[in-house]
Amino acid sequence: MSLLVVGTLAYDSVTTGAGYREESLGGSGMYFSIAANYFTDVSLVAIVGTDFKNSERFFLANKNIDLSNVETKEGNTFRWKGIYDPNNPNSRETISTDINVLAEFSPKLTSEARAKEYLFLANIDPSAQMNVLNQMDTRPKLIGLDTMDFWINSDRDNLQKVIENIDILFMDDAEIKSYTGETNIVAAADSVHESGPKVIVVKKGEHGVTVFNQGKIFSTPAYLLNTVTDPTGAGDSFAGGFMGYMAKKQGTDFSTIKEATIMGTVMGSFTVQGFSVENISDLEENKINDRYEEMVNLTRFPSLSEKGGPVV
Amino acid sequence: MSLLVVGTLAYDSVTTGAGYREESLGGSGMYFSIAANYFTDVSLVAIVGTDFKNSERFFLANKNIDLSNVETKEGNTFRWKGIYDPNNPNSRETISTDINVLAEFSPKLTSEARAKEYLFLANIDPSAQMNVLNQMDTRPKLIGLDTMDFWINSDRDNLQKVIENIDILFMDDAEIKSYTGETNIVAAADSVHESGPKVIVVKKGEHGVTVFNQGKIFSTPAYLLNTVTDPTGAGDSFAGGFMGYMAKKQGTDFSTIKEATIMGTVMGSFTVQGFSVENISDLEENKINDRYEEMVNLTRFPSLSEKGGPVV
Repeated sequence: MSLLVVGTLAYDSVTTGAGYREESLGGSGMYFSIAANYFTDVSLVAIVGTDFKNSERFFLANKNIDLSNVETKEGNTFRWKGIYDPNNPNSRETISTDINVLAEFSPKLTSEARAKEYLFLANIDPSAQMNVLNQMDTRPKLIGLDTMDFWINSDRDNLQKVIENIDILFMDDAEIKSYTGETNIVAAADSVHESGPKVIVVKKGEHGVTVFNQGKIFSTPAYLLNTVTDPTGAGDSFAGGFMGYMAKKQGTDFSTIKEATIMGTVMGSFTVQGFSVENISDLEENKINDRYEEMVNLTRFPSLSEKGGPVV
Repeated sequence: MSLLVVGTLAYDSVTTGAGYREESLGGSGMYFSIAANYFTDVSLVAIVGTDFKNSERFFLANKNIDLSNVETKEGNTFRWKGIYDPNNPNSRETISTDINVLAEFSPKLTSEARAKEYLFLANIDPSAQMNVLNQMDTRPKLIGLDTMDFWINSDRDNLQKVIENIDILFMDDAEIKSYTGETNIVAAADSVHESGPKVIVVKKGEHGVTVFNQGKIFSTPAYLLNTVTDPTGAGDSFAGGFMGYMAKKQGTDFSTIKEATIMGTVMGSFTVQGFSVENISDLEENKINDRYEEMVNLTRFPSLSEKGGPVV
C-alpha cells in the first residue's frame, strides 16, 4: 500500500564528533522517504528552491520515490546548520536556520496523492500538516504525525488541532512531557490518548522507544552502537521504518505495531551510522532483516512457561 | 545456595514528591538483603550503632536474614538525609550524611561467613569491600560489586583493586562513563572487561539496564510505573534480585544472567513503589512471578521465524 508524506527537504551543514558535512541532503521528508521506501511506495509532498540540484532529484526518482508533489519555487531550499556535542550525541546546538522557500509552502496535492490511504505528517509547520490532511479525498486508513519542540512551543493550538485528527503520534520523551504538562510518560500518553490518537510512540533516543496503544504497552531498548556518526534524521528515519512497515502490512493489531517499532529502531540505527542519508541510501535487504533479528537477540529472555516454572 | 553481602545499614530521612519519611530503615545492605532473601538465604555483614532498634533487628531476623556478622558499636548508626526533585525522581540532593559508626567499620567474618560461595560487595567504602573479600577461605564462585560516584571520585585506586577481583560489576551509566573515561557504554564495558569482570551490568534507572558478558549483550527497558513513591534503594534492590536469583540458579550461562536482570528489574520496581523497604518487606511470591511475566509482555515481539518470514 503506498504512503503519502509531507515534510521538509533541506540542505544540512552538520558538525559531529566524526567530522563535518556541508550542505548535504536532509529534512524530515527526505529521511522519512528513504527509510519508508524499503517497505512501500512513497509519494513525497515538499517544497524546494531553484538551487535544489538535479542530481538529488535523480537520486530520489531513481528510488521510485514519487516527486510529483514536490514544488519548486524561485529562491533557496531550506537550510539548517548545527553542531553536536562530540561527547553527547543527544545534545546539539543550532547555528542557523534559513527557512527560505519553506515560508511560502502551501501544498496542492495531485488527485492521485489525495486518494492515498496511508498518510504521514512529518516534522514541519502544523499549518502545512493540516493543509495536506484537509486535501485528502476521504480520511486515510492510517495517519501518523511527528513534530518537534519548536512547534510545540510556537504553534501549540494548530498542532493540537492536527493531533486530534490522527492515529499515531510520534514525540520524544521531553516533547510529550512538554506538550501535555505531565512529568511521567505513562500519564502523558494517557492525556494524548484522550485527545484522539490511538497509538503514542515515545522516542527516547539512545534509551529506546515505548509505545502506548489504549492500555497495551510495548517497550524496546535502542540498538546498541559503539559510535554514532551523525544523529541527524534518526527520528525521521524511525518514523519512516515504522510507517513504511505499517503500510506494507496493512494491519493495525498490536503485534504489527511492535514489529513496526523494531523496524523504526533498525532504520534509525542505520541512519546514525553515517552522515546525512549516506548509510540508508543503498542498504541491502538482508542487512535490515539481520538487524531486526539482532534486536530479537538483544531483548529476548525466557518467559515463565519457557523456563518451565516460576522464578521465585 | 546462600549469599554473603557486605553493605550499609542506615536510617534514611527522605523527602519525595509523595511525602516525607524520617529515620526509616535504609542502606545498601538493607535493600539488598530484603530483595535477595526472596531467592536464597542471606548473611549480612554490616555495622550499626547502639541506637539501632531491636524491632529492626527482629524484623530482619524474622526473615531468616543471618545477622551474626552485624556488629554493634558504641555510637550512632549511619544516617542519610536527602530530597528528590518531585518532577524528576532521577535527580536528588543530599542534605546530610552522618557516617557515625561506619567510620570504624572493620568487619571480622565468622568462619561460616568466610566459607560462602556467593558474595556481594554492596555500595560501601572500597576498603571494607576488599577487607571482606580478603577474609574468604577460598575464592567464592561468584562475586558481585556495586558502588557509587562518591567512591569513584574519592577512592578510585582502592575501588579499582577490588574490581580487578570480581565477576559482576554493577554501575549506572554515568558512573561507568566516569570510571572508565569513555563516553559510550559499549566502549566503557569493553574497558572494564579488560580489567577483570566478565559481566558488566549498566543500570540506567527509568531507561532500563544493559548487560555485557564478553561479547554477548542483553538490554531491557525498565518496568513502567506511572508514579514513583521513593527511588531510594532501587539499585541495591536490583542487585539483590539479580544476585539472589544467580545464587538460587547456581549457573552463570547467559540465559540465567538475562533472567537475573529481569528479576533485578522487578525487585527495583517494587522498591520504588513505597518508601524505604515498605513495599518489598512482605511481597507475595505470585506478585514477583506476575511482574516477571509482565516484563515478557512488555518487551516480546516476534522473531523472523515466528513471523514466518523476512521483514523487508
